[in-house]
Amino acid sequence: MLDAPETTRGPVVAALRAELQARRLDAFVLPRYDSHQSEYVAPHDERLAHVTGFTGSAGMAIITMETVAVFVDGRYVVQAANQCPEPLFSQHHLLNDPPEHWLATQSQPGWRIGFDPMHIPPVWYDRFADALQQGELVAVHNNPVDAIWNDQPLPPLGKIEPFPVQFSGKSAQDKINDLTEKMRAKGAAFLVETQPDNIAWLLNVRGADAEFVPAPHSFILIDAEGQTQWFVAAQKLDTDVRDHLPASVQVHATEGFLPTLEAQVAKGKGVLFDPEFCPSAVRFGLEKAGAKLMPLPSVVTAEKAHKNPVELEGMRACHLEDGIALTEFCAWLANEVPHRAKAGQPVTEREAEQSVLGFRRARSGFLGDSFNTISAAAGNAAMCHYATQEDNSVPIPANATYLLDSGGQYDTGTTDATRSFAFGRKRPDGYDRAYTAVFKAFHAIATLRFPEGTQGHHIDAICRRPLWDLGLDYDHGTGHGVGHRLSVHEHPQRIGKPYNPVDLAPGMILTIEPGYYVPEQFGIRIENLFEITRAQDGFMEFSNLTWCPIQTDMLIVDMLTRAERDWLNTYHAQVLDHLGPGLSSSALTWAKAACQPIG
Amino acid sequence: MLDAPETTRGPVVAALRAELQARRLDAFVLPRYDSHQSEYVAPHDERLAHVTGFTGSAGMAIITMETVAVFVDGRYVVQAANQCPEPLFSQHHLLNDPPEHWLATQSQPGWRIGFDPMHIPPVWYDRFADALQQGELVAVHNNPVDAIWNDQPLPPLGKIEPFPVQFSGKSAQDKINDLTEKMRAKGAAFLVETQPDNIAWLLNVRGADAEFVPAPHSFILIDAEGQTQWFVAAQKLDTDVRDHLPASVQVHATEGFLPTLEAQVAKGKGVLFDPEFCPSAVRFGLEKAGAKLMPLPSVVTAEKAHKNPVELEGMRACHLEDGIALTEFCAWLANEVPHRAKAGQPVTEREAEQSVLGFRRARSGFLGDSFNTISAAAGNAAMCHYATQEDNSVPIPANATYLLDSGGQYDTGTTDATRSFAFGRKRPDGYDRAYTAVFKAFHAIATLRFPEGTQGHHIDAICRRPLWDLGLDYDHGTGHGVGHRLSVHEHPQRIGKPYNPVDLAPGMILTIEPGYYVPEQFGIRIENLFEITRAQDGFMEFSNLTWCPIQTDMLIVDMLTRAERDWLNTYHAQVLDHLGPGLSSSALTWAKAACQPIG
Repeated sequence: MLDAPETTRGPVVAALRAELQARRLDAFVLPRYDSHQSEYVAPHDERLAHVTGFTGSAGMAIITMETVAVFVDGRYVVQAANQCPEPLFSQHHLLNDPPEHWLATQSQPGWRIGFDPMHIPPVWYDRFADALQQGELVAVHNNPVDAIWNDQPLPPLGKIEPFPVQFSGKSAQDKINDLTEKMRAKGAAFLVETQPDNIAWLLNVRGADAEFVPAPHSFILIDAEGQTQWFVAAQKLDTDVRDHLPASVQVHATEGFLPTLEAQVAKGKGVLFDPEFCPSAVRFGLEKAGAKLMPLPSVVTAEKAHKNPVELEGMRACHLEDGIALTEFCAWLANEVPHRAKAGQPVTEREAEQSVLGFRRARSGFLGDSFNTISAAAGNAAMCHYATQEDNSVPIPANATYLLDSGGQYDTGTTDATRSFAFGRKRPDGYDRAYTAVFKAFHAIATLRFPEGTQGHHIDAICRRPLWDLGLDYDHGTGHGVGHRLSVHEHPQRIGKPYNPVDLAPGMILTIEPGYYVPEQFGIRIENLFEITRAQDGFMEFSNLTWCPIQTDMLIVDMLTRAERDWLNTYHAQVLDHLGPGLSSSALTWAKAACQPIG
Repeated sequence: MLDAPETTRGPVVAALRAELQARRLDAFVLPRYDSHQSEYVAPHDERLAHVTGFTGSAGMAIITMETVAVFVDGRYVVQAANQCPEPLFSQHHLLNDPPEHWLATQSQPGWRIGFDPMHIPPVWYDRFADALQQGELVAVHNNPVDAIWNDQPLPPLGKIEPFPVQFSGKSAQDKINDLTEKMRAKGAAFLVETQPDNIAWLLNVRGADAEFVPAPHSFILIDAEGQTQWFVAAQKLDTDVRDHLPASVQVHATEGFLPTLEAQVAKGKGVLFDPEFCPSAVRFGLEKAGAKLMPLPSVVTAEKAHKNPVELEGMRACHLEDGIALTEFCAWLANEVPHRAKAGQPVTEREAEQSVLGFRRARSGFLGDSFNTISAAAGNAAMCHYATQEDNSVPIPANATYLLDSGGQYDTGTTDATRSFAFGRKRPDGYDRAYTAVFKAFHAIATLRFPEGTQGHHIDAICRRPLWDLGLDYDHGTGHGVGHRLSVHEHPQRIGKPYNPVDLAPGMILTIEPGYYVPEQFGIRIENLFEITRAQDGFMEFSNLTWCPIQTDMLIVDMLTRAERDWLNTYHAQVLDHLGPGLSSSALTWAKAACQPIG
């Protein structure tokens, strides 16, 4: 039986409240975002975790003198309840009970509500401003959490490396030229870019400021003639990077970003900025300078999403390496789980996670994980963002179900794949039926052909239908964009229920990852990466990138159509073709059995 | 060979321009809408057709001193080019080259651009206001088209009839009570309703002001206590209707609507109005009165969309009547086409249209067509809104393909169905393959199960997929809502690509109508009505309402799955079960053959 959750955050919250009172603030809005609205933040930017103890990848807190309201989405409700217990904290659903509405019910006349304008993008600021009936929002330039955080890690200073044209496929100067052409077409005099992966892509560099995403924290101001001012900590740049940059790029200290923006943007000049991703401090600065605001999704985001032939070739190549690592892991796991269980020393989740990392480390061009590996047995696999801890000793017993969702950064690209496993013959009730339905769902969308103008929310249900047919569903998206040796979660394209007005187009890369979860029992997910390609008749289709056997033991063959069986048999023949020459002999033996045609 | 198109509209346009100049207007925005934003307008309101000659069901013109720009959507491009020839008119695509953007490129500093504030809803007014860089919009209260239209028909004075609770399932007083409860929950003091079908539904009346839609033109202002002021021409109301109305409803002259609105709405009071469907004159009036604007989709629209058990029972009942009429027609057509073609007197499209009307007239409770029947042979069927003319003599020859899309108003409900036919053995290349794909598309969505929160744009692609698989598609929606003895096109629910944030819910009625069209060759469409029902596990499904054989001659059985064949065989067995007892012996003989199980 578990103890009631505890927290050590009491003193931190007390110190923060004192700091707020000293600044005459009645509340403070604390998002998980850093100045770049990153999904993965540096230790320096773990302010939300420092104050609340919540370590999930998305969330927000509002600190008042009465409570610390913690807002998380469905993925993190259980985790937040454990990490942020009452009475110090109160729990809220980020979407059903949004923070701006909650704040509006709390705020009193005269309240001063602080926020860090580097950490809240304009769309969020507007939501708060629109919802508030009384009280005012106050931009606070010295973050009060930093002021009370004694042992706060320093801001990251990850080395920046050149990313050669051999891998990027296009010079930074050519990218800047294309970008300024688009800026001029829109009548913009300047563009502000603050997203790390966009900057890395544009300048053909890679960085190391946060885990998993090899992109530097920095800011860019570019004018319509292509003069590019890059605001980045000098310590991150060695001579080789400076030499690698196009002549039109000048390097400046990070601190110069906002003052330069305000000083250089002449009154009435159009300035493009992304209202969902740039700091609201950017918009405040532009307003102060009298610029013409052009809040639009970043042009760089759209350019980056349409991969060029060299980037695509790199993605295909690193997927062959990754496929060997994954298949070696599968073979290891299939052998080790029963063997070690019998010996009374079962493989643990953590050990499996380290094993797959070890197989990847043996691959050419491997640089590191592309996200936190999910290595989860039985009911843990029902938690979509489960992470093992260092002291993890959760076993994978002889009759366990198990899920591995992992990916790598390679010199030529980024991978992300999920496989679900069931060892032994005894499976939980309903597992095989659900596994078969998840495979049917995966197949349904993997084989889809679609015309111009199709968007991700149009086709999400194509994937869900085989599950819906059985009264099943999954409470997450169907697929996300993937960067090219950049973030494993890359917008703007995605496949999911929410409206996403982005045309799916050739050269985009997406995951397809349907699943099914029974809390405390099991979780199933099958995930491959796909590039979108164009067929001869003008329709588009998904072209597979990920090569690794899809477990067939749990398939109820009678539930499959001929087309589904044929597709799987063809896929497995291709897996053997692509990976066979690179596999160890033991893994090849396993793979040949795993790729045996069905039905 | 066709002559170049001609127009007789020259003098009308000249007179209108003179009228505009006399009023110091440089342009006039002329939508097809009337004061109720109706799809079907009365002859009195056919201003767009009077000025431009364009007779389609959706469109807009902007008259300047230089040109008359006509804006129509994809359905009407060909028709508008014929009816509104250059040089008097210029052609534009309503969606790709929207009128507000075109006007912005034409308007000069100082331009006064007239519009009738009763005919332009607020969302359209805002689009024009936002797009215009120079010139001003001028609300014109005496419509200039009326001023120059010598023989303009009088406004309609269709008699209003009580619609008994026996058919409506709920008293008007109960509906008003439910409505005011929702108004109070939203903090609204008043609600303005101007949509004819919403008013007819709310007051349990039916009218006769426009073809096909049995709803009266009128306006309602209702307060949060349920006091309901109905602004309607007194001539439309006999004593029986007045006696039928709840005591809380007071009848006033139509002219009183706007003055009463402005006089009664106290400053700061919240007023609900639908910004997509009410006249912008309503918003101007509310602004003048200082009311708190609450522009929201009408609560009545949402209530009306969720049919009650009596309405659903009525829909099911009238579909049995309509199925007999349609099946009698199919049998007649199947016999008549070859027979008459052989005799050198082929059946004409117009004759077929009259035939189906005749069969419907013989059915119990039939009141009239629910829309303009589409009776189209060969290439005419590729025009999605083709209408025969009185002098139509287009034959349906012995080897023709043919499409009938028609529906009826019955005392207990409204119908809408489409069947596609091919007579003889010789069919155009690709017809059978496309027909089979259209059937597969129809089947795909008709058999869908879906969870709470599913919206129409989520499932549109489920229907298109069997066509996409073959590189085919259709350029119209997949399904529209249908009223209960009201408009055959009823929002808010629909199935289509455009974002439509309305949850599909039990009690909603929708068409499913995939198609495929080859211009000048053939058109194929299969359409049934469905009600949404809830399955035991909480998922929802489509439950069929329309009973009429689906032509099997053109199906390529090898392209069908076992499930598709089984579904069709079961449907056909149900058709015979439901209709058999009511069919004439000759139609029953035909139907038994048409419903023969396949494969």
